[in-house]
Amino acid sequence: MSTEKNIVLKPVGYVRTRAYKEELRSRKGISQIIISEEFVEALDGIQEFSHLLIVFWMHKVTEAQKHVSKVHPMGKLRLPLVGVFSTRTPFRPNPIGVTRVELLDVKGNVLTVKGLDAFDGTPVLDIKPFDYWNEVKDIRVPDWWAKLKKEWLAKSEKTTSSS
Amino acid sequence: MSTEKNIVLKPVGYVRTRAYKEELRSRKGISQIIISEEFVEALDGIQEFSHLLIVFWMHKVTEAQKHVSKVHPMGKLRLPLVGVFSTRTPFRPNPIGVTRVELLDVKGNVLTVKGLDAFDGTPVLDIKPFDYWNEVKDIRVPDWWAKLKKEWLAKSEKTTSSS
Repeated sequence: MSTEKNIVLKPVGYVRTRAYKEELRSRKGISQIIISEEFVEALDGIQEFSHLLIVFWMHKVTEAQKHVSKVHPMGKLRLPLVGVFSTRTPFRPNPIGVTRVELLDVKGNVLTVKGLDAFDGTPVLDIKPFDYWNEVKDIRVPDWWAKLKKEWLAKSEKTTSSS
Repeated sequence: MSTEKNIVLKPVGYVRTRAYKEELRSRKGISQIIISEEFVEALDGIQEFSHLLIVFWMHKVTEAQKHVSKVHPMGKLRLPLVGVFSTRTPFRPNPIGVTRVELLDVKGNVLTVKGLDAFDGTPVLDIKPFDYWNEVKDIRVPDWWAKLKKEWLAKSEKTTSSS
């Protein structure tokens, strides 16, 4: 039965950044992704894309946090308690992050990107080109999500980037 | 060193679908995602989203295919040979799929979705709400990518859904 087997992954590289907390959240921080030498060829042609999806392993999530089933979004008690799959919380059974970044530069095995909300040292699992395939009209989200988004955007405009 | 450690994941559910090959590629197929009972609470509130990102494990990829570093996109020899990270090929070091789907229905531990390009039996690793965060203007992609997209859209319009 496929759901009972464990799946074993090996990082293809890791994140190097001086950006921290608020700066990571604001999506304005600059990070480098250091790809292991054995995967350098797999980067061929990537500089032709302006944006990438980075799939990474949120390695600071503890075993206990993986068993959390509901959260208040962004830890805000005034927002409803909802299932972790209805949020972007790092507390989830498989703490995999998926973030769209802007690709600024490629030099050998080092990608310089903007907007990666992953801590220094985060293992990277996969890199995918970003395309218009993600565009959809008439997206519906809960009220609490729309509210958070509005607050985040307002805050984000105030945050200055260190880069 | 974080890049040397293996990462162990456990599926949170699996895909059930009768859609196959062309229908999966056309993103018009209907699939069900059967979530393991232990994670049902984590779905709470998910019906308020119209679209989700499904993170899944492409379990049919062989060990040899994980070591492929370059491919001709979609197997088309007329297109340039590029690194796997510059394509959406399933042949990649960690064959993780990330697909946006439309959420049609939620009943208990069963999500019915449209547009999931994953075979019947595929292990699901994570489910995330889809938001406008993926929207960007002025995306740049290689010429070969734009060409493929155009062909895919033309073909997709001809494909009829079985549902």
